[in-house]
Amino acid sequence: MNKKLMKQLDFIIEVDKLKNIFRQSYIADTSRRENDAEHSWHLALMAVILSEYVKEDIDIKKVLKMLLIHDLVEIYAGDTFAFDETGYEDKEEREINAATELFYKLPENQGKEFMDLWLEFEKGENIEAKYAAMMDRLQPLILDYATEGKGVIESNLTRDQLLKRNEISLNDGPKEIKELVNYLLDNIFK
Amino acid sequence: MNKKLMKQLDFIIEVDKLKNIFRQSYIADTSRRENDAEHSWHLALMAVILSEYVKEDIDIKKVLKMLLIHDLVEIYAGDTFAFDETGYEDKEEREINAATELFYKLPENQGKEFMDLWLEFEKGENIEAKYAAMMDRLQPLILDYATEGKGVIESNLTRDQLLKRNEISLNDGPKEIKELVNYLLDNIFK
Repeated sequence: MNKKLMKQLDFIIEVDKLKNIFRQSYIADTSRRENDAEHSWHLALMAVILSEYVKEDIDIKKVLKMLLIHDLVEIYAGDTFAFDETGYEDKEEREINAATELFYKLPENQGKEFMDLWLEFEKGENIEAKYAAMMDRLQPLILDYATEGKGVIESNLTRDQLLKRNEISLNDGPKEIKELVNYLLDNIFK
Repeated sequence: MNKKLMKQLDFIIEVDKLKNIFRQSYIADTSRRENDAEHSWHLALMAVILSEYVKEDIDIKKVLKMLLIHDLVEIYAGDTFAFDETGYEDKEEREINAATELFYKLPENQGKEFMDLWLEFEKGENIEAKYAAMMDRLQPLILDYATEGKGVIESNLTRDQLLKRNEISLNDGPKEIKELVNYLLDNIFK
């Protein structure tokens, strides 16, 4: 088989490891924690469902690509819990090394495309990256709501911490997303 | 919260059940079977990676939407193993009922959009639906290859059965996808 296709096949198999990276959130029936692959799927579907509220022109294809790859770096860098301050100290360096190692298993132009897309998501400067980040913060909040705060209680999180985590939606989000975040927070901490 | 947003929130929570629908395929490290949510994510990412080989104009955003929702009907209809002939007898009826029940939990226009998209995928008449179906058949083959045929051996599948299952790629697929399918088959049954 040609080398380029072989690289793509190897990458597709390598990223299967995302299915074994577990997060703090519980799935809605509380039976177990969620993994990064399921989380990425859920986010992408949410991005489709809620996109009607974004008034600006937004490139949903780009948002979906970002969401499909946004957690891949965790295959080498591990999941850093959003509220783990120590883990965050060297998170950026660990993740950039991980991204370089992983994405460049692809043919070079495709590796660069994924790297650029991931950096764009991380910087959060354009509407696509911002909307993708809103989904990434909102989805665990929805699971917290569905599980009556199971993960929140176990990790001793406060309303203020979750509020801060969802600042991007509350500051820059469309009014419906703000409404949703506030509704979820009110119900998780009622 | 407004009713429309509430419906969307309920739907987002309802589809979380996809994470508990298990397939016949094993994940690449063979530790457990794969669930439909992870499978959907993996397909969508593969669709991005391999899209360069499709020469015709293809709407990748539409392909991604199709792949994100294509298995949702299994939440109510269950997973019918691709090689289960008895299960296939009433599969269509079960799935149409399931799709109607599930998608119309969304606001009506969005429910209709998802229903139409799913039917388009099922009919497989346009390039987007065909490419999405190729990914849906190719991904378990990649896992079979990665696991040295673990699922194939357990289910007593033959090369002919897998060949038939991947007919859409071998008949209508770009030459690189054909090359990939043949490479995988040769290695699974070597």
